[in-house]
Amino acid sequence: MTKELLIEQIRLKQSFLCVGLDVDINKIPKHLLGEEDPIFAFNKAIIDATHPYTVAYKPNTAFYEAQGVKGWQSLQKTIDYLNKNFPDIFTIADAKRGDIGNTSSMYAKAFFENLHFDSVTVAPYMGKDSVEPFLQFENKFAILLGLTSNQGAFDFQTLDTEGEELYKKVIKISKSWVGSDRLMYVVGATKAEFLADIRNIIPESFLLIPGVGAQGGSLEEVCNYGLTEEIGLLINSSRAIIYASQETDLAEKAAGEAQKLQQQMAEILSN
Amino acid sequence: MTKELLIEQIRLKQSFLCVGLDVDINKIPKHLLGEEDPIFAFNKAIIDATHPYTVAYKPNTAFYEAQGVKGWQSLQKTIDYLNKNFPDIFTIADAKRGDIGNTSSMYAKAFFENLHFDSVTVAPYMGKDSVEPFLQFENKFAILLGLTSNQGAFDFQTLDTEGEELYKKVIKISKSWVGSDRLMYVVGATKAEFLADIRNIIPESFLLIPGVGAQGGSLEEVCNYGLTEEIGLLINSSRAIIYASQETDLAEKAAGEAQKLQQQMAEILSN
Repeated sequence: MTKELLIEQIRLKQSFLCVGLDVDINKIPKHLLGEEDPIFAFNKAIIDATHPYTVAYKPNTAFYEAQGVKGWQSLQKTIDYLNKNFPDIFTIADAKRGDIGNTSSMYAKAFFENLHFDSVTVAPYMGKDSVEPFLQFENKFAILLGLTSNQGAFDFQTLDTEGEELYKKVIKISKSWVGSDRLMYVVGATKAEFLADIRNIIPESFLLIPGVGAQGGSLEEVCNYGLTEEIGLLINSSRAIIYASQETDLAEKAAGEAQKLQQQMAEILSN
Repeated sequence: MTKELLIEQIRLKQSFLCVGLDVDINKIPKHLLGEEDPIFAFNKAIIDATHPYTVAYKPNTAFYEAQGVKGWQSLQKTIDYLNKNFPDIFTIADAKRGDIGNTSSMYAKAFFENLHFDSVTVAPYMGKDSVEPFLQFENKFAILLGLTSNQGAFDFQTLDTEGEELYKKVIKISKSWVGSDRLMYVVGATKAEFLADIRNIIPESFLLIPGVGAQGGSLEEVCNYGLTEEIGLLINSSRAIIYASQETDLAEKAAGEAQKLQQQMAEILSN
């Protein structure tokens, strides 16, 4: 989908919430385990309940791959269900892929042409020719890891690299790549104060912000530093929403949590 | 499998060759396209023909994911075939995964417990807690990207990071991680002269060396710099072997190419 449609949807729903579909089969309500495809049944329940409050869904591929072929089937069904029923919702394959050019083209094909996601998260370590193959698809986006939300972000991403932190170098250099207008960036909410510097480098790019909620980041702080005229933020929440209940009231509770975040976002947008 | 068994196999076969199963459906011989699972049929033919000359196989997940659910099935069948028929051969899922700890655990589960690979390649950008979950499995290995074989390796990996190139920093710091005796490293053959420095940091670790052949690296040069008392090298070749012919003589031609490399390796080992 186009960036314009994403922004339009954000204004319409007064929400820049992304729901992370990181579905661990051991954490879903027992009554779903009898379904033919419990993970898809779970996702469908979450999507049906939360879609009024969210503009994006982000399945993390790890949780599907852990179930092997069956998991990949659940992923396929989930993205098909989203594309068929909610074509105005932005979809993110949180896959953190990246390889030599020839191979990255295959990953791009997997997520954009086979599964029909709107975007995929990509790791920067292998450089330009590992990312550019993801930037050749009209109305598709690569979301590059900038500064991640985990403790390990401080192992390499914040090291001084020829005069600036590595993650800043990554973001700066990525702007020169072919198709860089199709780049968005992952920036962890647990490091909100870093957003001011990042906005100096990429004042308008969309940022996907994980780490609000279970990982400890603050929504308001992120918005203070990160919001732009065209919003420019997608705030992800996974566990706080999808595991809001492990009982039969799962959908209701998940909707409640998503709505709570949407209302906070609406208030921020109105200011 | 254990590192000891891998070394034993190398000495037995006089080979430290790894065959990369990077199977592009558009490049396999036409006569296989009528098979129920052409990619698995292709892999089976390659494996049956080349196993006397190789100690490892390395399917790159991108090529399987590009085919969606069917591709993941081909991957599953391929690793099952290897584990059943050639339990002494080392298997590598070339997946370049890495995510926050909780999620990396799911990837580890996917490749070690669901698919039963011996090892998986892992990207370092997200740091310690993104890699350590892969290091908790007995007789399983994580192969960390050090210095890759592509042009983009020079975008970030070789930048000066607090006094040394980033890839050296990555390798050094990784040695302090819990389970680091289960780490191996990816080092591109196209940069063989860098191996001398790398061997100073990790004198004994196994290195997986892509980029010999199609990508232009030299086997002899790599061995000059990289060989250890316990060999310590796995040299990957993909395209030069698996696409040695696109006709019905595929298996014969692939075996020929693998044998050629094995003979060069045997000669190097005898010196």
